[in-house]
Amino acid sequence: MSYNELRKDYLLDRWVVIAIERGRRPTDFVKQERQQAKTGVCPMCPGNEHMTPPAVLAYLQSGKGIKKVRDSNDQRHKNWVIRVIPNLYPAFLPPKAGISKKQIEKNENLCLAVGHHEVLVEAPIHDAHPANASIPQLTHVINGYIDRLRELSAKPYVQYVSVFRNHGLEAGASLSHAHSQIIAMPHFPRTVKEEIDASRTYWKKNGRCAFCDIIRKERHGPRFILENPSFTAFAPYASINPMEFWIVPRKHETSLLEMSPNAVKTLAETMKTCLNGLKILVDDPPYNFGFHLTTKPEAADYYHWHLEVYPRLAIWAGYEKSTGAYINTMTPETAAESLRTEINKTR
Amino acid sequence: MSYNELRKDYLLDRWVVIAIERGRRPTDFVKQERQQAKTGVCPMCPGNEHMTPPAVLAYLQSGKGIKKVRDSNDQRHKNWVIRVIPNLYPAFLPPKAGISKKQIEKNENLCLAVGHHEVLVEAPIHDAHPANASIPQLTHVINGYIDRLRELSAKPYVQYVSVFRNHGLEAGASLSHAHSQIIAMPHFPRTVKEEIDASRTYWKKNGRCAFCDIIRKERHGPRFILENPSFTAFAPYASINPMEFWIVPRKHETSLLEMSPNAVKTLAETMKTCLNGLKILVDDPPYNFGFHLTTKPEAADYYHWHLEVYPRLAIWAGYEKSTGAYINTMTPETAAESLRTEINKTR
Repeated sequence: MSYNELRKDYLLDRWVVIAIERGRRPTDFVKQERQQAKTGVCPMCPGNEHMTPPAVLAYLQSGKGIKKVRDSNDQRHKNWVIRVIPNLYPAFLPPKAGISKKQIEKNENLCLAVGHHEVLVEAPIHDAHPANASIPQLTHVINGYIDRLRELSAKPYVQYVSVFRNHGLEAGASLSHAHSQIIAMPHFPRTVKEEIDASRTYWKKNGRCAFCDIIRKERHGPRFILENPSFTAFAPYASINPMEFWIVPRKHETSLLEMSPNAVKTLAETMKTCLNGLKILVDDPPYNFGFHLTTKPEAADYYHWHLEVYPRLAIWAGYEKSTGAYINTMTPETAAESLRTEINKTR
Repeated sequence: MSYNELRKDYLLDRWVVIAIERGRRPTDFVKQERQQAKTGVCPMCPGNEHMTPPAVLAYLQSGKGIKKVRDSNDQRHKNWVIRVIPNLYPAFLPPKAGISKKQIEKNENLCLAVGHHEVLVEAPIHDAHPANASIPQLTHVINGYIDRLRELSAKPYVQYVSVFRNHGLEAGASLSHAHSQIIAMPHFPRTVKEEIDASRTYWKKNGRCAFCDIIRKERHGPRFILENPSFTAFAPYASINPMEFWIVPRKHETSLLEMSPNAVKTLAETMKTCLNGLKILVDDPPYNFGFHLTTKPEAADYYHWHLEVYPRLAIWAGYEKSTGAYINTMTPETAAESLRTEINKTR
């Protein structure tokens, strides 16, 4: 396979992977295909490991607990609890041995799409989505994120690792088996870069982390959802999605790599509680989530990782797409109150 | 009705209208409603003018040609060719008489959503979408955009006027009658602001308009679609949507207000040709379009208006939503070649 291209917009600081390799044609997008769910045999279900590439990481159930296996020759073990496999249609590809920085960074508007694109199969059980999964299983998933983040972020050509999840066909999940995705990329993405820059400015001006201040404010206000010793969940003040919520560590941490094992378990509980609340309230809606983080030591003082969950209840249309401004038809105060009430019911 | 709130993100320079007035609840978003097309009587079809607010502008067919009527007491004329009416669920509301700038701009993160939100009914014929419409009819539509842009952009509380169109239910068009929308807003939207800033920098450095240079390059390259005396159409180098294309005036102009009557007619032809090509190639896909422009005289040297068309053939999922980086599975070179070939067939 050859590399895809990473191209920068004429004027905006916005980058796009142009999938040269996949090379789709207009006829690939006719309506039938657009609306058709993938059906038939699930390549992520146990017994079908031969339908996927070998795993780069697997957690295996053994007599003594979980055994982690990495990069072995044929990672098609049968007794796995989670598996991380290369995406069959990767947007980013690892660099060939000996390729130089100059060969990768062609010019200021063009770069080879060097990196990694992986799929984390979250459980042997097809429908073990976070709202349904057991806490031990979801803890394995988060540990899988952490293991891949540690390994990928250490590579010299990787600037950012995006860990995200698409839930439901309308949210871009073309396979319904519970899975997340991990993309390691050679530059900082626009939104996280802007957050990092703004939080640096805030820190220089106020001597405090912006997110620590946000938590202090939101945990007592009308947008508060829940809190435990490790995390606060709230609906952000300027939510651009109906029912959007964020889960933020109460301790100042820049990435998932700093979490204690106990906090990992608490994150699993927090995610399950919030996502289950959303599922009940809005009839299992499609959603996307993504972690915002950095592993750059220089940002340790001022950046604060968090998980942003975007329920997909509205369509971003011509106004949003052409202007970058948004309209949200539900107040975050209503979203938080509904989630808070629902969550307290089942506690 | 009371005002909605315009809220700024904690860190990003991103604004959202929070629809306080509409006040939707989670149960309003259950699946049935999300997937249900509006059915029954079309409030935009002739004879149903009583179902909409009075028009702020109507073009009437008269013996001597088109008669424009504005802001009369009861704009529910029957013999219209286009009508512009206030949106029934406006994101922005006009300011009450005597309201001060200070009452509108509450603080650096909050502003009342003062402005206008209008719907332009493009034709008496329900399905007269631009790909199907006659050139005279589409010329009326563009003249309607221009009339509203002129009036709204002159208001002291309006910074930007967004003219956009949603085509198809999946693209956010909840009513299928051919219509566009116009939003006049009290601040500059993120994407256009960034384009204006970058084009100012380019102009200071190179002494030329960035867009004039882009046209010079793209009209001879693999992303070229079509050209006529007034416009060039091409697929942008870093398209974030499959089949995305832009229509740019060849003359250096900052907004639609500078177009000659002849150019208006040519724009109608260019839009119809390109949108019809898209319709044939991909089986009438949903799409959004939006004009990028400014009416600020200080930008006259360096900003250049254009129309961006975003076919909706892919889903922006967790990666795009959480990072602001994009993956496009079709190259703009393929998009341009397909559109060019299709358009040349029917010429």
